[in-house]
Amino acid sequence: MIGVKLITLGTLKEAYWRDAAAEYEKRLGAFCRLEIVQLKEERLSENPTEGEIRQALEREAEKIFAQIPPKAYRIALCVEGKQLSSEELAERLDRIGESHGEVCLIIGSSFGLSDSVKQACQMKLSVSRLTFPHQLMRVLLLETVYRSFHILRGTRYHK
Amino acid sequence: MIGVKLITLGTLKEAYWRDAAAEYEKRLGAFCRLEIVQLKEERLSENPTEGEIRQALEREAEKIFAQIPPKAYRIALCVEGKQLSSEELAERLDRIGESHGEVCLIIGSSFGLSDSVKQACQMKLSVSRLTFPHQLMRVLLLETVYRSFHILRGTRYHK
Repeated sequence: MIGVKLITLGTLKEAYWRDAAAEYEKRLGAFCRLEIVQLKEERLSENPTEGEIRQALEREAEKIFAQIPPKAYRIALCVEGKQLSSEELAERLDRIGESHGEVCLIIGSSFGLSDSVKQACQMKLSVSRLTFPHQLMRVLLLETVYRSFHILRGTRYHK
Repeated sequence: MIGVKLITLGTLKEAYWRDAAAEYEKRLGAFCRLEIVQLKEERLSENPTEGEIRQALEREAEKIFAQIPPKAYRIALCVEGKQLSSEELAERLDRIGESHGEVCLIIGSSFGLSDSVKQACQMKLSVSRLTFPHQLMRVLLLETVYRSFHILRGTRYHK
């Protein structure tokens, strides 16, 4: 069973995001060893400067690096990443399962991820050119990983 | 105030999607005249043929056409559509508000939309190459429209 570790920043504040994430977490238990780590977001002032944002992202990066499993295949979520179809992503996860046994997916805070984190990842994945709240992005990613397993098993979930 | 009509197929079965959609509906009231129409999905057998799917989509298309406001700018959501950034979409909605006064966004059923609906739309919009449940797509689209208004007003919601 492939290991899937999701590293996220910040809490799911709205009950509907928490409930949606919890539902997909439960369902994913049938397909993978899932671990979700929720790190604390750095606090920023109302109108942070570019330098303050960069520093905050670097502090978040330290916490992220401490959580990445050494042998996992690392995927950073970012808008400039590569977009894949659901089928392509499923195939990719299947190959990662065989080669690495574990995948680590990293979703940044509302200001994204530091360059250091992106560079430390083997793959940069983009879900959309549109911006979504990173809380919603966690739900999207869980659904997408769940869908991947259904694609690989050829079930009716993904028609 | 621009009119925004969302035509969707099928119900939001999960409470968390209903709650998320209701929250964005409420918030959108400050920015637009929002109307959401939820049409009945056609029933299909367990393993429908291509012909059966096409017929179901055509029946759904008739119901959709009956709901499209005659003067609205029409946008069909489909994976082969054009992807825009949040800023580009906001600008597009702003121009539609000035030229048409109303936009009609159409999200198909789990098998998508008929070609006839796509051809009747001025724009085809894609959110992602990834497939998402059409219930989740409704939430994504509401968040995106809500974000567009914040972008146009220059608020902090979209940093």
